[in-house]
Amino acid sequence: MPENILDDISHRRYNPLRGTWLLVSPHRTKRPWQGQQESPSRVTLPDYDPACYLCPGNKRAQGDSNPQYKSTFVFVNDYSAVKEEQAEYKQAEDSKDLSSLLLKADSVTGKCYVLTFAPNHNLTLADLDPSRILPVVQAWTEIYTAHLSPTSSLANVAQPTTLAPSGISITAPNAQYRWMQIFENKGAAMGCSNPHPHGQVWTTTGLPDEPAQELEQLKKYRHEHGGCSLLADYAKLEMEKEERVVFQNKTFLVVCPWWATWPFEVMIISKGHKRALVDFGDDEKRGFAEAIAEVTRRYDNLFETSFPYSSGIHQAPLEATEEEIEASHFHMHFYPPLLRSATVRKFLVGYELMAEPQRDITPEQAAARLRDCGGPLYREAL
Amino acid sequence: MPENILDDISHRRYNPLRGTWLLVSPHRTKRPWQGQQESPSRVTLPDYDPACYLCPGNKRAQGDSNPQYKSTFVFVNDYSAVKEEQAEYKQAEDSKDLSSLLLKADSVTGKCYVLTFAPNHNLTLADLDPSRILPVVQAWTEIYTAHLSPTSSLANVAQPTTLAPSGISITAPNAQYRWMQIFENKGAAMGCSNPHPHGQVWTTTGLPDEPAQELEQLKKYRHEHGGCSLLADYAKLEMEKEERVVFQNKTFLVVCPWWATWPFEVMIISKGHKRALVDFGDDEKRGFAEAIAEVTRRYDNLFETSFPYSSGIHQAPLEATEEEIEASHFHMHFYPPLLRSATVRKFLVGYELMAEPQRDITPEQAAARLRDCGGPLYREAL
Ligand SMILES: O=P(O)(O)O[C@H]1O[C@H](CO)[C@@H](O)[C@H](O)[C@H]1O
Ligand SMILES: O=P(O)(O)O[C@H]1O[C@H](CO)[C@@H](O)[C@H](O)[C@H]1O
Repeated sequence: MPENILDDISHRRYNPLRGTWLLVSPHRTKRPWQGQQESPSRVTLPDYDPACYLCPGNKRAQGDSNPQYKSTFVFVNDYSAVKEEQAEYKQAEDSKDLSSLLLKADSVTGKCYVLTFAPNHNLTLADLDPSRILPVVQAWTEIYTAHLSPTSSLANVAQPTTLAPSGISITAPNAQYRWMQIFENKGAAMGCSNPHPHGQVWTTTGLPDEPAQELEQLKKYRHEHGGCSLLADYAKLEMEKEERVVFQNKTFLVVCPWWATWPFEVMIISKGHKRALVDFGDDEKRGFAEAIAEVTRRYDNLFETSFPYSSGIHQAPLEATEEEIEASHFHMHFYPPLLRSATVRKFLVGYELMAEPQRDITPEQAAARLRDCGGPLYREAL
Repeated sequence: MPENILDDISHRRYNPLRGTWLLVSPHRTKRPWQGQQESPSRVTLPDYDPACYLCPGNKRAQGDSNPQYKSTFVFVNDYSAVKEEQAEYKQAEDSKDLSSLLLKADSVTGKCYVLTFAPNHNLTLADLDPSRILPVVQAWTEIYTAHLSPTSSLANVAQPTTLAPSGISITAPNAQYRWMQIFENKGAAMGCSNPHPHGQVWTTTGLPDEPAQELEQLKKYRHEHGGCSLLADYAKLEMEKEERVVFQNKTFLVVCPWWATWPFEVMIISKGHKRALVDFGDDEKRGFAEAIAEVTRRYDNLFETSFPYSSGIHQAPLEATEEEIEASHFHMHFYPPLLRSATVRKFLVGYELMAEPQRDITPEQAAARLRDCGGPLYREAL
């Protein structure tokens, strides 16, 4: 492999999915660390916490009570970043006026949901079998489907399912939104404000920058390569190379991408060209649940701690042109901050914010370590 | 002001300097916080720490000893992210080969410096008078000048100075580098690995993404507006509007930019069109030192703590076309994470990483609070 030299020298790698670069400095992990120590997460949370506003039966911050739910549970965020209704705002457009050029704003409406993964206060995705992650995948699919534009060509392709419904109830939004961001912040180090395992779903009228940038790159690749999908080609290439592969099953590939920014960053890619959750049949959903279980369990095993991360799904926008839908390729990102141990993380700070992201170990080294920590969850073996 | 409604509704603001958007949700600070607490920084560091590898006279991690320096001190980072010499690497270019398209890498060389601000282990920029920050500005100017391409039109414009030299000694690099990133990580929350106040300077053969993106936007504006500078126009506009201004003197404006991402993000902008440190005369350098003192002191006063941040200077590249030099406009960014108090920060995580940055208070509210905390450093008044 001619790339082996990259284990020893500083270099930049290109991220074709964002059109951006990152600096890799493989030799840099040896520097002394007198900085911040993360507190390793308490692994002794109770199964039920009477003070938790996500546990079944409990009262939430603004007074609503949770039902005695048995699987997943969804509700509208009591402190939503965007709302369905608000005062109108339209900026005066006057190209001669510097204000309209340099002080530009747009109103945004939307809806924010919270989704608990299980009734248990102490069971993270890493603790759940794929069969218990499946209802989460089902819930995501149901929420996505309920918000899809009726004019989208994706609106009528949902695969027939024999899976039990997730049990969540969703009231249709008042307006058509453009984008749905499904994500999870896990662990205090990633700003999680409640340890009860949960994710969030934010939908907005605008297409946010990050998916917009990916969509541009995917469209461009498709255009330049006769209709091929960048991520299908990339998955094929990684399966040949093997060195960045962490896990795979029939439908999904788990890799530390060539261009990974976070130390143990991972991407779950649909091997085939699937555009959104509605494109997956029951077996494929089971494959996705398995991939999530494999990632999260390996993460926890790596440093024998409840591994913090932010994760998120990128797929076709809710309201989209046919070109955008066809360019979309379903995938999920995991951005975990830990670098050396349960207590020493990587900070993406000064140089990273002012110049360009920088990483200290290679993605190949990260993948090798994650490949090696499959098997049962370390906590269960204890 | 028609913008007042933006205090109450969710909206997106445009950042013309990067060409990106951000989501503003002004009502969101009310949500309960059960997440991570930062430890308020110890304000009782000794003036000298025998175990610190930055204090005068001490041994560094790899055995070199620091001189008994009296002002600033610069040395090549013992764990540099980029180095002057390394093995050659050139990727085979073959456009038919998927690898060269999707696994793209470039070798990077360069030089990384560490710059201590003062001999005292416990004096941050907030503790220093402008007259003691001036040697830091001088040192930055000397480092920048020593690395400027001899063919750059900036190489011979350095203003005559009557200021004492900073005392640092710089050996010319072996190669010509394209970009110099001057930055500081302050505080454990921003990944600072040693509390002795210091900044860093990384120079590289490549132009990193962040300044490249700004330079594109600056060039475009200049082209579309008959040679004007986006940031000169912006500074003028903010001086008229006043609501985002934190501080100003003859040469520099300090604002919470319209498009600020971090809660108390601040930008120091040169009012006139200055392209780089070498464009400033002695009085202007004094003005810059004063602006830095005003920002850092106000930060510490805001929550009565040693306020963490990452800061960095953007100016003309070391090696640049005449067009790039003329488009460059000297400014300094401050990205501080604290949101509500000395212990509760803003996390830019799941939604921010997967979709788009999101902020909870408006830049106007942040500016008003920073305007109100001028005056002596709270620690001195105690
Ligand atoms: O160079 P330091 O202070 O050891 O390290 C700090 O700054 C670097 C540049 O922003 C980052 O890459 C590191 O993650 C951070 O801990
Ligand atoms: O919504 P939460 O969990 O209260 O808050 C967390 O996630 C949000 C979305 O990524 C961030 O904006 C917050 O800074 C973070 O603390």
